[in-house]
Amino acid sequence: MAELKDLTKRSESYSQWYNDLVLKADLAEQSPVRGCMVIKPYGYAIWEKMQRILDDKFKENGISNAYFPLLIPKSFLSREAEHVEGFAKECAVVTHYRLKNAEDGSGIIVDPAAKLEEEMIIRPTSETIIWSTFKNWIQSYRDLPLRVNQWANVMRWEMRTRLFLRTAEFLWQEGHTAHATREEAEEEAQTMLHVYNDFANNYMALPVIMGVKSANERFAGALDTYTIEGLMQDGKALQCGTSHFLGRNFAKAFNVQFVNKENNLESVWATSWGVSTRLMGALIMTHSDDNGLVLPPALAPIQVVIVPIYKNQEQLNTIDSKVAELTAELKSLGISVKYDNADNRRPGFKFADYELKGVPVRLVLGARDLDNGTIEVMRRDTLEKETRPIEGICQYVQGLLDDIQKNLHKKALDMRIANTRSVDTYEEFKTEIEKGGFILAHWDGTPETEELIKNDTKATIRCIPYGDFDQTPGTCMVTGKPSARRVLFARAY
Amino acid sequence: MAELKDLTKRSESYSQWYNDLVLKADLAEQSPVRGCMVIKPYGYAIWEKMQRILDDKFKENGISNAYFPLLIPKSFLSREAEHVEGFAKECAVVTHYRLKNAEDGSGIIVDPAAKLEEEMIIRPTSETIIWSTFKNWIQSYRDLPLRVNQWANVMRWEMRTRLFLRTAEFLWQEGHTAHATREEAEEEAQTMLHVYNDFANNYMALPVIMGVKSANERFAGALDTYTIEGLMQDGKALQCGTSHFLGRNFAKAFNVQFVNKENNLESVWATSWGVSTRLMGALIMTHSDDNGLVLPPALAPIQVVIVPIYKNQEQLNTIDSKVAELTAELKSLGISVKYDNADNRRPGFKFADYELKGVPVRLVLGARDLDNGTIEVMRRDTLEKETRPIEGICQYVQGLLDDIQKNLHKKALDMRIANTRSVDTYEEFKTEIEKGGFILAHWDGTPETEELIKNDTKATIRCIPYGDFDQTPGTCMVTGKPSARRVLFARAY
Repeated sequence: MAELKDLTKRSESYSQWYNDLVLKADLAEQSPVRGCMVIKPYGYAIWEKMQRILDDKFKENGISNAYFPLLIPKSFLSREAEHVEGFAKECAVVTHYRLKNAEDGSGIIVDPAAKLEEEMIIRPTSETIIWSTFKNWIQSYRDLPLRVNQWANVMRWEMRTRLFLRTAEFLWQEGHTAHATREEAEEEAQTMLHVYNDFANNYMALPVIMGVKSANERFAGALDTYTIEGLMQDGKALQCGTSHFLGRNFAKAFNVQFVNKENNLESVWATSWGVSTRLMGALIMTHSDDNGLVLPPALAPIQVVIVPIYKNQEQLNTIDSKVAELTAELKSLGISVKYDNADNRRPGFKFADYELKGVPVRLVLGARDLDNGTIEVMRRDTLEKETRPIEGICQYVQGLLDDIQKNLHKKALDMRIANTRSVDTYEEFKTEIEKGGFILAHWDGTPETEELIKNDTKATIRCIPYGDFDQTPGTCMVTGKPSARRVLFARAY
Repeated sequence: MAELKDLTKRSESYSQWYNDLVLKADLAEQSPVRGCMVIKPYGYAIWEKMQRILDDKFKENGISNAYFPLLIPKSFLSREAEHVEGFAKECAVVTHYRLKNAEDGSGIIVDPAAKLEEEMIIRPTSETIIWSTFKNWIQSYRDLPLRVNQWANVMRWEMRTRLFLRTAEFLWQEGHTAHATREEAEEEAQTMLHVYNDFANNYMALPVIMGVKSANERFAGALDTYTIEGLMQDGKALQCGTSHFLGRNFAKAFNVQFVNKENNLESVWATSWGVSTRLMGALIMTHSDDNGLVLPPALAPIQVVIVPIYKNQEQLNTIDSKVAELTAELKSLGISVKYDNADNRRPGFKFADYELKGVPVRLVLGARDLDNGTIEVMRRDTLEKETRPIEGICQYVQGLLDDIQKNLHKKALDMRIANTRSVDTYEEFKTEIEKGGFILAHWDGTPETEELIKNDTKATIRCIPYGDFDQTPGTCMVTGKPSARRVLFARAY
């Protein structure tokens, strides 16, 4: 319980609450390497569930995995002009390939004789190295489409880091596809955005908003960047995944051409798309509460924990054998279950610990329950407890897990809807943005106005949203010039 | 067929045959980054199957996955004296964290202002960063054992590289465990060696020899290194996986202590163990032939390919619908199947291509087969063809896949046995080692004699083997001094 007491309340400091939670729920911690995190086993188990689900979805969509080098020659970055402009500056640079013992015996030093002719950088993203490879793989229209993905670590030398949300090294997947036509590439970028949207909604219980980025917020080198944007409990937005239509920029930079059916040479069309361990931050911030982590059952490494309450070994033996039955039945229903009958921690400690770790359902079985044919059920999302007949409890738990999954999504969606407002004047905007949440407002479509709003208010255009959002034209809240439609603003992580 | 003709025969040049095969079977290729490979989708699909099987086995054994930083501060390497001696010299060194535009407009350069206070190296292995982290995770005997694994990329600046066998960057898993007692740690190292041995035999169809390394061949920082050694078709040995008992070396270097049940502080005992993409090289070299790759069914991304033979669209339609039935039935038996009815490649080309790619079973269905109720079956391992009734063909294929798996192991085991010989004199040894294969010989147990043999013959002690090998004492073939038992020599990759 001591640990739990140390968890800062969200109302005191949302940011401190987040840091406490990531540490205390054993998800991740800072490493001795500045800005790089260690993902601990419990946190990594959640990431593995995400990976497996996404990877299966990619494969259903016909994507193959591959692996490309960690290091990128410095000169590659200069090949695509916009890419190098927007990227590639803050990155880890490898300059030497050997250490040696210092001659004065003081330890090991970098061997000055082992200097690389050309410096390499650790990949901040892999478009350049992948398109230099695609050149060898693509000759004819028969080689297209080419659709690959890699699960990899990448590095961007961020100055201000936060566990999962912004780290120098992070884990991600990056999909890279090559197509014969513009239409096919644009469709691919959309398809993958929808894969991310489905994953966020149906597994993370995160009701993201899909849309397209403004020019300012585009990926460096893309013609269009599509995004899914989530709203966190503190009213700040979090970009959860992006899918880029890259046009022919990288194909031209790396001279990737194909012979079309009419026997003419054409440049190839491209997309890239990725999600990262940042999703862990989104997951944590969307659902968790002052008692700790709250996990949607679809991503919980442990979906059900069973804790026994007993006075003596004989009682424990009886409970153990009943739990063995329950465990087998739950597993046969595809539910992951942990029975914690360790005798070195008291039940109250266990309760607090599994709450902190966000296990969706807790079952408590005592000697008296066995006499009464009952069992106590607690659901983590609402913290509601009830005593139920043990008969049929496994089917009940199965339904309860579905219910929790739906309830978390509904709660997050309700919160998002309640915190998405339309404003018409810039004065109103400046007041409302202080309250957090998404703001729908008219904008004249220019980068200059967007920049001005950002400088004034720290708010950015998260996207021009798809779907049910108001698409009527109006006038820009700042300049009064015509606006095609309202766009979505927020302060963001 | 053109591609196939270019595959060098093993008898001409085994080494050239290997390189050709890796490229032509679409497994991997050199990247623009010296010594770093691109693992192509087909090669990566095999690696993914290996990963999934090993990962499941680790988890069955209670191991959790986690993730530790890519970069290691230079000073960490000096902490464990033997480790730094045997390692850490040839490695990629990160010295700067920013690029900038050159003032003369000539491109981008490393920003001299962004020099790291302490250089970092890209992990060649992670004992140091992991043990610096374990210090925070281990306080009491209740925190032990701690058993984690990571799937990661690592880098060693090798001067002479070969695809999969020796590359500057490679993919691997590295398990790291911490224990309260020496016995438990030694048992862990053995357990994981046996996991590797089972995997090699039962999935890779690779009859490796288990044993312990001599002091010269030990991992830097280990008290004992256990190994599985395979014999390739050219008579050279390949180390396929190692498991290290690290004693208390890393715990002492990073000051990791725990309070035992008697309330006293003790240093922790450690193991580490790993296999890498090198296993891909072992897999390729063990089974493949002059027609291309031969894959054991347990690791083949496509286990069965079906090719139609037809004269017109009507015939193809009839074949398509029959194949749909077969495909559904094969999938229901857990068999991965590909139906290749693409009309831009002729059957002969497809046959050669799937042979090159090592698909274990090929089914060919023609219009005449449909009339006769037959189908042609080809097994890749022996290249035998037969025509069988289509009725019951799926069960037959299932049995055939099992048979191929067993046959490949038997063939490799027979080859290994035929090429494992005992010799008694050093003269005889020098003659025999030229023929390749494993040689069992007496050795006086000293590093000096081992070194002398290596310098004379390029042969190393692969291991002191477990199991059925002769354990009678004798006299060293070089010095005539007493020898505890015969040890296993070979020239190695």
